[in-house]
Amino acid sequence: MYLLLGGNGYVGSAYRKYFEANKIAYQSFSRAELPYTQPGVLEKHLKNNRPDFLINCAGYTGKPNVDACEADKANCLFGNAVLPGILAEACASADVPWGHVSSGCIYTGCKADGTGFTEEDPPNFSFRTDNCSFYSGTKALGEEVLQDAPRLYQWRMRIPFNHEDGPRNYLSKLMRYARLLEAENSITQLDEFVTGTLACFEKNIPYGLYNFTNPGHITTRQVAGMIEAAGLAPHPFSFFSDETEFMQKAAITPRSNCILDSSKLAKAGIQLTPVVEAVQDALARWIPEVKK
Amino acid sequence: MYLLLGGNGYVGSAYRKYFEANKIAYQSFSRAELPYTQPGVLEKHLKNNRPDFLINCAGYTGKPNVDACEADKANCLFGNAVLPGILAEACASADVPWGHVSSGCIYTGCKADGTGFTEEDPPNFSFRTDNCSFYSGTKALGEEVLQDAPRLYQWRMRIPFNHEDGPRNYLSKLMRYARLLEAENSITQLDEFVTGTLACFEKNIPYGLYNFTNPGHITTRQVAGMIEAAGLAPHPFSFFSDETEFMQKAAITPRSNCILDSSKLAKAGIQLTPVVEAVQDALARWIPEVKK
Repeated sequence: MYLLLGGNGYVGSAYRKYFEANKIAYQSFSRAELPYTQPGVLEKHLKNNRPDFLINCAGYTGKPNVDACEADKANCLFGNAVLPGILAEACASADVPWGHVSSGCIYTGCKADGTGFTEEDPPNFSFRTDNCSFYSGTKALGEEVLQDAPRLYQWRMRIPFNHEDGPRNYLSKLMRYARLLEAENSITQLDEFVTGTLACFEKNIPYGLYNFTNPGHITTRQVAGMIEAAGLAPHPFSFFSDETEFMQKAAITPRSNCILDSSKLAKAGIQLTPVVEAVQDALARWIPEVKK
Repeated sequence: MYLLLGGNGYVGSAYRKYFEANKIAYQSFSRAELPYTQPGVLEKHLKNNRPDFLINCAGYTGKPNVDACEADKANCLFGNAVLPGILAEACASADVPWGHVSSGCIYTGCKADGTGFTEEDPPNFSFRTDNCSFYSGTKALGEEVLQDAPRLYQWRMRIPFNHEDGPRNYLSKLMRYARLLEAENSITQLDEFVTGTLACFEKNIPYGLYNFTNPGHITTRQVAGMIEAAGLAPHPFSFFSDETEFMQKAAITPRSNCILDSSKLAKAGIQLTPVVEAVQDALARWIPEVKK
């Protein structure tokens, strides 16, 4: 039996949907139902219910985007850096293995040779490098808080998308924004993230950090072109001339745009679809929000 | 009426003692008595009780010293960076002015010209400068979380001491450690901190950040010499040869040693005793712990 925290969010909902569709036993609680941030509550629940694996999708992302974190720093810090530590203590005490949805948004750019960052590279878009959004800072601190936690997977997701239109879906965001920022990114197909993360536990791969992005990288212009080719562009795409204009006109805090190397995951036996193919597939099966 | 949070700690106890001795009306609650970290609890309490001023001494310092924070990162982050944000929200909502015990331990060294850091200088011993203890990182983040909070004093204390022997008193620590580290510091006489911080509210000085240290700076060797001269040295003092030896033999995480400029506080009309005189006075009135 799986225990899911944060099951009402964008990522958590994808787990619930998968569990329901595949008749997999799980529990999912909101903080109101199980006040798991309070001392002792989660530990007691784990000891009484003995889930096989806990999945933490709870966190603070900022709505509609990461700018919102700048105005709500304490809650952002709590959700992304303190809460993981609370969960780690409870899971260690109850000896329950678990997985935490971390973020690849703690990097910017790529390595000097043009390749992606591996799990060995320290974050370069964090408080410690003093160049980040508050959100990215808290996610990197969360990894620090968890660095010695036993029996833990930290899965670094980036810019989730799938075939279902919605306000948190990267492809939908590109369709809905008035103007776009050209950038090169590694990104994560949400449904493959769900099945792939569950496979970590099922296949018993080694615990630790995993860059959980679809192999390769893709530019905003590439994705925009694919949306146009699929006949899904609501209007001709318009781009900011550069990041400076984007920051001046549309953003409060800097964004992470980065390339990650996901080969550690592949070597552990978990293969995700190459990124261009994954985007094409999502667009081919696209379900507009109004029709859902 | 004052509302005191964290009244059972070293700093909080000094406020309680002062309030009791001077028959000043106050409330003091532990988190068990008033679960003020939980949503809505403090705001409701403030609106129902309408204290004139809230003083936050609650925080996470690590016992017996800052090394303990490295092994309890989530709680340290919660106490020093999230909790201040929770209090800020409640105080703003209830329109209650307040003061927060911040720390000068977010700096290291002194300015290039040998003078102390002012409130205008950004912290240089923080996550953002990537050279700090986890404790100092969280205290600096706490100041960031509070940077836009209305009607707030942030008082930067450093290395508190007074005439009462005890495990948290800097002078007692020097007497009790097997070996000392030579360093130059600005430090804070605890009882003057209490009366001075209350004077901020009473005199209605401008809200904001204040370096709350006794004017000047002092070296460990100077203080050790004064302890010897006062006849209070339990054994001849022994010093580490340098910080490298100290870090190798006695510490897990780097310490902040720094000089602060407290002239903003003095200009606002709050005069603390020059540091050498304050130390001499404490030693002259020394009350050993066993006799208390």
